[in-house]
Amino acid sequence: MKLGMYGLGRMGGNMAIRLARHGHEVVLLNRTRSKSEEIHNQAPKSTIVDDLKSLVEALPSPKIVWIMLPCGEVTEQAIKSLGDMLNKGDIVIDGGNTFYKDDIRRAKMLEAKGIHYVDVGTSGGVWGLERGYCMMYGGSKEAVDHIDPILDSLAPGMGDIPRTKGRNANLNPRAEKGYLHCGPAGSGHFVKMVHNGIEYGMMQAYAEGFDIMRTKGSDRLPEDERFDLNMADIAEVWRRGSVIPSWLLDLCADALAKDGTLAGFKGDVADTGEGRWTIEAAIEEAVPAPVITSALFTRFRSRSGNTFGEKMLSAMRFGFGGHVEKK
Amino acid sequence: MKLGMYGLGRMGGNMAIRLARHGHEVVLLNRTRSKSEEIHNQAPKSTIVDDLKSLVEALPSPKIVWIMLPCGEVTEQAIKSLGDMLNKGDIVIDGGNTFYKDDIRRAKMLEAKGIHYVDVGTSGGVWGLERGYCMMYGGSKEAVDHIDPILDSLAPGMGDIPRTKGRNANLNPRAEKGYLHCGPAGSGHFVKMVHNGIEYGMMQAYAEGFDIMRTKGSDRLPEDERFDLNMADIAEVWRRGSVIPSWLLDLCADALAKDGTLAGFKGDVADTGEGRWTIEAAIEEAVPAPVITSALFTRFRSRSGNTFGEKMLSAMRFGFGGHVEKK
Amino acid sequence: MKLGMYGLGRMGGNMAIRLARHGHEVVLLNRTRSKSEEIHNQAPKSTIVDDLKSLVEALPSPKIVWIMLPCGEVTEQAIKSLGDMLNKGDIVIDGGNTFYKDDIRRAKMLEAKGIHYVDVGTSGGVWGLERGYCMMYGGSKEAVDHIDPILDSLAPGMGDIPRTKGRNANLNPRAEKGYLHCGPAGSGHFVKMVHNGIEYGMMQAYAEGFDIMRTKGSDRLPEDERFDLNMADIAEVWRRGSVIPSWLLDLCADALAKDGTLAGFKGDVADTGEGRWTIEAAIEEAVPAPVITSALFTRFRSRSGNTFGEKMLSAMRFGFGGHVEKK
Amino acid sequence: MKLGMYGLGRMGGNMAIRLARHGHEVVLLNRTRSKSEEIHNQAPKSTIVDDLKSLVEALPSPKIVWIMLPCGEVTEQAIKSLGDMLNKGDIVIDGGNTFYKDDIRRAKMLEAKGIHYVDVGTSGGVWGLERGYCMMYGGSKEAVDHIDPILDSLAPGMGDIPRTKGRNANLNPRAEKGYLHCGPAGSGHFVKMVHNGIEYGMMQAYAEGFDIMRTKGSDRLPEDERFDLNMADIAEVWRRGSVIPSWLLDLCADALAKDGTLAGFKGDVADTGEGRWTIEAAIEEAVPAPVITSALFTRFRSRSGNTFGEKMLSAMRFGFGGHVEKK
Repeated sequence: MKLGMYGLGRMGGNMAIRLARHGHEVVLLNRTRSKSEEIHNQAPKSTIVDDLKSLVEALPSPKIVWIMLPCGEVTEQAIKSLGDMLNKGDIVIDGGNTFYKDDIRRAKMLEAKGIHYVDVGTSGGVWGLERGYCMMYGGSKEAVDHIDPILDSLAPGMGDIPRTKGRNANLNPRAEKGYLHCGPAGSGHFVKMVHNGIEYGMMQAYAEGFDIMRTKGSDRLPEDERFDLNMADIAEVWRRGSVIPSWLLDLCADALAKDGTLAGFKGDVADTGEGRWTIEAAIEEAVPAPVITSALFTRFRSRSGNTFGEKMLSAMRFGFGGHVEKK
Repeated sequence: MKLGMYGLGRMGGNMAIRLARHGHEVVLLNRTRSKSEEIHNQAPKSTIVDDLKSLVEALPSPKIVWIMLPCGEVTEQAIKSLGDMLNKGDIVIDGGNTFYKDDIRRAKMLEAKGIHYVDVGTSGGVWGLERGYCMMYGGSKEAVDHIDPILDSLAPGMGDIPRTKGRNANLNPRAEKGYLHCGPAGSGHFVKMVHNGIEYGMMQAYAEGFDIMRTKGSDRLPEDERFDLNMADIAEVWRRGSVIPSWLLDLCADALAKDGTLAGFKGDVADTGEGRWTIEAAIEEAVPAPVITSALFTRFRSRSGNTFGEKMLSAMRFGFGGHVEKK
Repeated sequence: MKLGMYGLGRMGGNMAIRLARHGHEVVLLNRTRSKSEEIHNQAPKSTIVDDLKSLVEALPSPKIVWIMLPCGEVTEQAIKSLGDMLNKGDIVIDGGNTFYKDDIRRAKMLEAKGIHYVDVGTSGGVWGLERGYCMMYGGSKEAVDHIDPILDSLAPGMGDIPRTKGRNANLNPRAEKGYLHCGPAGSGHFVKMVHNGIEYGMMQAYAEGFDIMRTKGSDRLPEDERFDLNMADIAEVWRRGSVIPSWLLDLCADALAKDGTLAGFKGDVADTGEGRWTIEAAIEEAVPAPVITSALFTRFRSRSGNTFGEKMLSAMRFGFGGHVEKK
Repeated sequence: MKLGMYGLGRMGGNMAIRLARHGHEVVLLNRTRSKSEEIHNQAPKSTIVDDLKSLVEALPSPKIVWIMLPCGEVTEQAIKSLGDMLNKGDIVIDGGNTFYKDDIRRAKMLEAKGIHYVDVGTSGGVWGLERGYCMMYGGSKEAVDHIDPILDSLAPGMGDIPRTKGRNANLNPRAEKGYLHCGPAGSGHFVKMVHNGIEYGMMQAYAEGFDIMRTKGSDRLPEDERFDLNMADIAEVWRRGSVIPSWLLDLCADALAKDGTLAGFKGDVADTGEGRWTIEAAIEEAVPAPVITSALFTRFRSRSGNTFGEKMLSAMRFGFGGHVEKK
């Protein structure tokens, strides 16, 4: 198929290349033209344009524009412009990290003109070019059926991952190829958001476990209660036959094989919004989510020095017991 | 009554003085004699001895020995020695911060010789000399009845705190004076332990609230979403008519009145064991205790730099997304 | 002063009575007139009107309208109507449980016409009529100075609560009387929101402690490890001289004195929004708030049967270990 | 090699069969002989004995006895008996779910007689017979080297799991085959314990995510904010190319493919000790472990009706606000 790809960063660029490799014609647009040229060199049959208007003009009807911009204001602006340029039956795809309530709002806005909006939550990070992208998307059946060849090319496919026992005809065959129509607009980013929330919780579970094992060898314990454990070997052994293998554990094993002390990392852990939104969704639904929340709070704390709250604790302890802080 | 007080630190010394003011004869014993002399000067009718044997000899039968030593090995040793020196009907009181399972074990050990063991959980800290000590204690009815005059002198009494509506004849009148026989040996320190667990949770609740309010004025938020709130005034206003006044809030107000930025505190918060034990008790009973546990974990984290677990998180993020830490 | 009070529920009604007792002229408006008459009987010099237009007409300029409606749509509607009816210099006061971001929006809306908006976070519940109301409020200095006589009448005053040591001239004298101008519009409800978040955390701290103590007597433990503790007496003893007395503990003691088993309560715990908003604020600020969050999650879980998440856990356990659930 | 296997339950029985398939001679002992005969039928070259004495006599020196009994008193008793029956150089292996501090104590006990003690933490559950068992073990180098052929047969081997990049000569090659000598006695069960703690956290992360997604379709939300998501398809799509594939997710997908509502499960989630011990270890080391702890607390709560703590919350709410519980 022919489609436009607007935004050729780490994600958009690799997706354009993967699409081109699968025979699609991709019209490339990026803020800086040099990036477009770089992608063009790896993407046969792609063409470069310099602005959104040219991109739209280069496409046949129904026009398909995939937006892959950094979340927020830039995406909002692009969608508004496309709302002006596109017509009934055209399709706008937002593949970025968008808050699902923004999708719902935008879809309504475009729907007034008969333009379809498809939100695609995309997982796979820097590995997606080769592994394929796991995609969870929302939108009208009409629109997602039309773009199915694109999604199919981006998806990882069944690969050598064993089939789940007991899956039957009622269940979606695309899910087994790594892409899923979740429901109406917004539902794709909603499911992707929860995916990231789970990711936070799993990462924190591993992090706590490795912390407990490593500290077991430290001078916080009496000498005869210590174990000096090898983090890299433990990560490795768990990869085979235990209950907790996962792709995230593979990443732990990679990192620890390089340096079991992780000395190259400071431990200052960023967050990119989805964890926060997952908790907000949990709160709206009155669902307890202590693990995902704890994982987020750990990240918050990792980025600050001692908090004002901790000072308040010390001040109270001083107040009732004359406890003076250790220097 | 005549009793021995072994250990004249901040707690034991003040208790000896309070007892002497109420007319009791206190035999003083401390590792360093100078401390005994200092207390003697403020404690009429007290006498000083230099070792445990002399202390025991100075007392009439049934002998009453109150131990107020730093938790742990020193207390254990003192009780073993008293087990050798005392006789049937004598009473050993442990007023320190003892783990209640140690009380149960010690009580059994002494019981074999007919010696009574009373464990007294004592709250009140540096304020107890004037305010009196809130005491929760465990032991045989015979023993605790015998030492009631001592406990009554140490307790704060009803003071001007209003009576609880609906208390009736079945409930313990001593509780209204601030001291309570909780049950058999160990139960006093158990209740005191839970008291401290609650204290951790309450302190953390205030700490989080003040943190959220103070950070509301910080550059973590866009300028037009900030409030520059006065911590000292807020602590003050909550003391009057709100739902959350407490003695701990009074301490917050004190500290914040002196310096609303708490610049004198680093936020390195110690813990003294009772929080840990409370969580262990909760786990033994399969009772969820997320607030007390979170409060303890916050203290752990406050005393360390970035943890190995946080480095593991960064290493995973780098692995799947090429995310590089902020410097 | 003369003011209108719109909304005579439990809070608004009592506030009208308290204001009337202090000599203010209150114009009463309520959805059902019978309620207005009931309040009028206890509120000398009050008058009754039947609609918002009459209320506004009954007031001298600058007109003061205190809205005390159930949070949400009703309040929104009332403020919009008042925006049409009032003029430059008039003052709208929202004393309900409003989300502070709604205050900011509303204040901007009214400001365009020169109407002042004051948000008052009010604590004190059913006790406020006699105890007075602790108030945290936001708005322009001009407006809050004008309504000071009203706030002063509603506030609890210094009463017999001891002054905080070290408070000096820079600190707000009103705070000592139980009312505080926190900052611009929205800041009052923000501080009140955090107050409630802290309340959640404190309540949960007590709840966990009493749960651990009561379960210590249950058959979850071997018979020789149990203590059969008296909840009512323990709550009572902690009221005097311990580290954790508070008004909330007084309420625990009241309830437990009536029935130490709390058999009249099911344990189905509601939440009214402020806890959720506090966590959202914490997340916006990247401040860890594990205690307040745990307290909210406990309430969520208290109101449901087993969750879908718990079923998922059981399904996984069955999957890897053939573990069958206990029936 | 020839070894004794004492305890032929789900784990021990399958391990005996796997060992026999790999050519080892296994002497079988079980409380009920019928179970031994059942295993014997699937285990060539195995023999059956009826008591521990006969098992010991049937083995050549140095004798190797693998104990696979339900945790606790039975294991303790077996090890004491073996301590009497065995001699210098013999090897006792505990493959059960033992608390690592018990291992340390037992190893010391046996060491006095020159008997080796090896603790093997074993993961793999009902799948181990075919997949092999991931094993983490502790003990003297001499002992573990001697039993290496046994462990090698039980281990899963490299299979088709890709090698970790960057593993070098310093790292243990056995780890890549799924078994690892962690350190001295106790360290095997310590690492296995942490493995289970991580498992709790990961399971809870998935559980929360699926709960949030399923509840998104429920009547807790206004009708126009709901998504009716297909749990089975989502679990499936995440298995391919996302960041969160894992063996535990495969189990979720299995269960959800059978019934997306999990109606066959009540959600009453057991725990088997390792989660509790992991938290105790974290507390001893002052390492925050909020995710693992939250996971355990969720299980506790899943097995009870409303707690006393929740009643206390309701009682306080009634006290300050007259809030009556929903019926």
